[in-house]
Amino acid sequence: MESARMARHLDASQPGFEEALRHFLDEDRGQGEDVAGIVSAIIADVRQRGGAAVADYTAKFDRLQLDPSTLQSDNVDLDLIAAQCPQDLRDAIDFAHDRIAAYHSAQRPADHRFTDDAGVELGWRWTALDSVGVYVPGGRASYPSSVLMNIVPARIAGVERIVMVAPAPDGELAPAVAYAARKAGATEFFPIGGAQAVAALAYGAGPVVAVDKIVGPGNAFVAEAKRQVFGRVGIDTIAGPSEILVIADNTANPDWVAADLLSQAEHDPSSQSILITLDAALGKAVEKAVDNQLNSLATGARARESWTAHGAIITAPDLATAARAANIIAAEHVELCIADPDGMLPMIKHAGAVFLGHHTPEALGDYVTGSNHVLPTSRAARFSSGLGLYDFLKRMSIQRAGPKGLAALAPAALRLAEAERLPAHGRSVSIRTNQGG
Amino acid sequence: MESARMARHLDASQPGFEEALRHFLDEDRGQGEDVAGIVSAIIADVRQRGGAAVADYTAKFDRLQLDPSTLQSDNVDLDLIAAQCPQDLRDAIDFAHDRIAAYHSAQRPADHRFTDDAGVELGWRWTALDSVGVYVPGGRASYPSSVLMNIVPARIAGVERIVMVAPAPDGELAPAVAYAARKAGATEFFPIGGAQAVAALAYGAGPVVAVDKIVGPGNAFVAEAKRQVFGRVGIDTIAGPSEILVIADNTANPDWVAADLLSQAEHDPSSQSILITLDAALGKAVEKAVDNQLNSLATGARARESWTAHGAIITAPDLATAARAANIIAAEHVELCIADPDGMLPMIKHAGAVFLGHHTPEALGDYVTGSNHVLPTSRAARFSSGLGLYDFLKRMSIQRAGPKGLAALAPAALRLAEAERLPAHGRSVSIRTNQGG
Repeated sequence: MESARMARHLDASQPGFEEALRHFLDEDRGQGEDVAGIVSAIIADVRQRGGAAVADYTAKFDRLQLDPSTLQSDNVDLDLIAAQCPQDLRDAIDFAHDRIAAYHSAQRPADHRFTDDAGVELGWRWTALDSVGVYVPGGRASYPSSVLMNIVPARIAGVERIVMVAPAPDGELAPAVAYAARKAGATEFFPIGGAQAVAALAYGAGPVVAVDKIVGPGNAFVAEAKRQVFGRVGIDTIAGPSEILVIADNTANPDWVAADLLSQAEHDPSSQSILITLDAALGKAVEKAVDNQLNSLATGARARESWTAHGAIITAPDLATAARAANIIAAEHVELCIADPDGMLPMIKHAGAVFLGHHTPEALGDYVTGSNHVLPTSRAARFSSGLGLYDFLKRMSIQRAGPKGLAALAPAALRLAEAERLPAHGRSVSIRTNQGG
Repeated sequence: MESARMARHLDASQPGFEEALRHFLDEDRGQGEDVAGIVSAIIADVRQRGGAAVADYTAKFDRLQLDPSTLQSDNVDLDLIAAQCPQDLRDAIDFAHDRIAAYHSAQRPADHRFTDDAGVELGWRWTALDSVGVYVPGGRASYPSSVLMNIVPARIAGVERIVMVAPAPDGELAPAVAYAARKAGATEFFPIGGAQAVAALAYGAGPVVAVDKIVGPGNAFVAEAKRQVFGRVGIDTIAGPSEILVIADNTANPDWVAADLLSQAEHDPSSQSILITLDAALGKAVEKAVDNQLNSLATGARARESWTAHGAIITAPDLATAARAANIIAAEHVELCIADPDGMLPMIKHAGAVFLGHHTPEALGDYVTGSNHVLPTSRAARFSSGLGLYDFLKRMSIQRAGPKGLAALAPAALRLAEAERLPAHGRSVSIRTNQGG
């Protein structure tokens, strides 16, 4: 155990704790490179040259030759690749699929119509997007579970065109990703990635017809590209490195807590795992268990890097202080490994997902509880939600005033139009009521 | 009547119509200036110099001296200014306020918890944001109605800090805006605007404590600033010029339809008014009525500019064709001035708000129906909704597996973790089930 390579320690009972915590959270966990210029050049090129530009970038970055008119390669046939997925893995994907479908089916919001005292009919109606693009990363972060999490809610919402893009470097695509895409219901697939794929989805390029919204995680270039095309199309929250916060008391098993902290740390060196412990002895035991488990972990190198650079153990004197810290952290995943998680739940205001009790490791939510694992990171749980049916629906408001309702509303509308110096607004009302204009 | 200064005419029964329509919609209605560089420099300066930078920009752009430590001016006291709002206008604001409050109170989504067949407890919980910044434009677009539309839903959602910013050029702030801010429930106010105000809200500056989300319309600099701070904070949809689409048949009154088209055209030269008529004679009558009404409109100059540059009259042979065009246009406001608006409503898939029948001019929705007038523009209704309670709430997912649920879910989770080469994910499950790991 190297003393220099340890997670940070903070004590929530000390003065200045919250400032120290905010400072810790503000530490940069991202890449230093400035990607905006590179990305905007790629987007401009794709807008100008279309499919040819996408094919060129794919040849350059992914060493994959695509026909510019189809943006396909005979070497990357989704169905042929899906057929290579072993049966037991298909069964696991099917199991996860069905649970994700069930959970998201329960999310469908209801339309609403009512007539108020003034005789005005009001309400709203939810309708699905026509088309979405789903970005699936290549390489280490190419996960069949993410394919399910992004596509299944879109399909259940009623989206007709679900266009999946995933880079296939050297023609490589994981069979489980291909199988999950077919199972979830992708209607189109292009083996492209990076900012060029985002540009193609937003503006259209060659055979890629522009979509209405782009979802799915990606590297810094993909995130920046999504930011730049936002407005032209919708996007989901910009994804950052993964995070877990475990709140534990002396009823927690330190080995289990350590395993959970490492389950996020292993994602990436920029991931963040934080323990808030109500019990100092537990904190010490967890730290020791983390060290032990790191030694036998195939992903130990990057997990150790994440834990030592960004990990933290916070001791808190009571649940209220722990909750206050948790709400500042606003973590993607929050586990309540305590005696009475239900008692604490109402105190948690900002979190992507909350896992209750000792038998709900966060990894269950990554795969099979049915809840979505696409969740706000980097404190975005302060203002945003995990992916869900809502991301693939929008709400149009409905209103109708008959002559009676119009008469009831007209005087205030006319007065406001006058105050805002918008006489045509006023006239559109008064011309119907003969109240002058 | 100058023949060169007319709205565009399109015929939906002609071949190539949809392509011509898309081309028309793609015409640039925005400013040509590239604002990204200017905005990023202002944001960087505010991040570095805080309140002093904000005070400097306010002195430069708004000719208003602020104390950098308070970002206030004795000349811009919200309560003193609100006191100048005349009583009849207060009454109209109060009337609108109460209806907006009632409508948005009906939007509160329910929390949900259920236990499924595997014994896994699932659900979600909605919680309010802690703080929001509300941007209110200065000058021509400084509208008390917008103050209500942005602040009331935040207050009803339960947001504790509602920080309003509005530029006060030369110390000028509309009394109705000040009154609406107090009525709606702004908890803090700073007389600042532009990219510097957005930067202050996103990062904090001097007395401005950073908020979690920024909403409200603004000019191109404000919109670009919101785009650049997105991720650090949440933002609402980026607002573009206003739009109206009227679908009318031979039961419509051409003078009323003309008034409605002009009620959007008067906002700005870049606004867009489109008529889809099922009846060619009505189209001609509306065009004539528009010309007549323009002559007697105080805002006629900019309404005429909007109508001639961006207006259009589309003749459609039937409702299905009209609906198809409407869904491509995906307008902010859609009026169904037809015999059977309820029959057509299910055909409208993409719109910010729909106004049913002959007695519901869009201006009613701008002010007093209670529905929100902050709506997606520039075809964003394809993928986003108008402002509502949802913008000030977020949904955290909840999940709990006891030992039984864990046992049911473990095999699939372990298989997926193995496929994704995330052994710590697997171990966090297996360490609790003793299935190896």
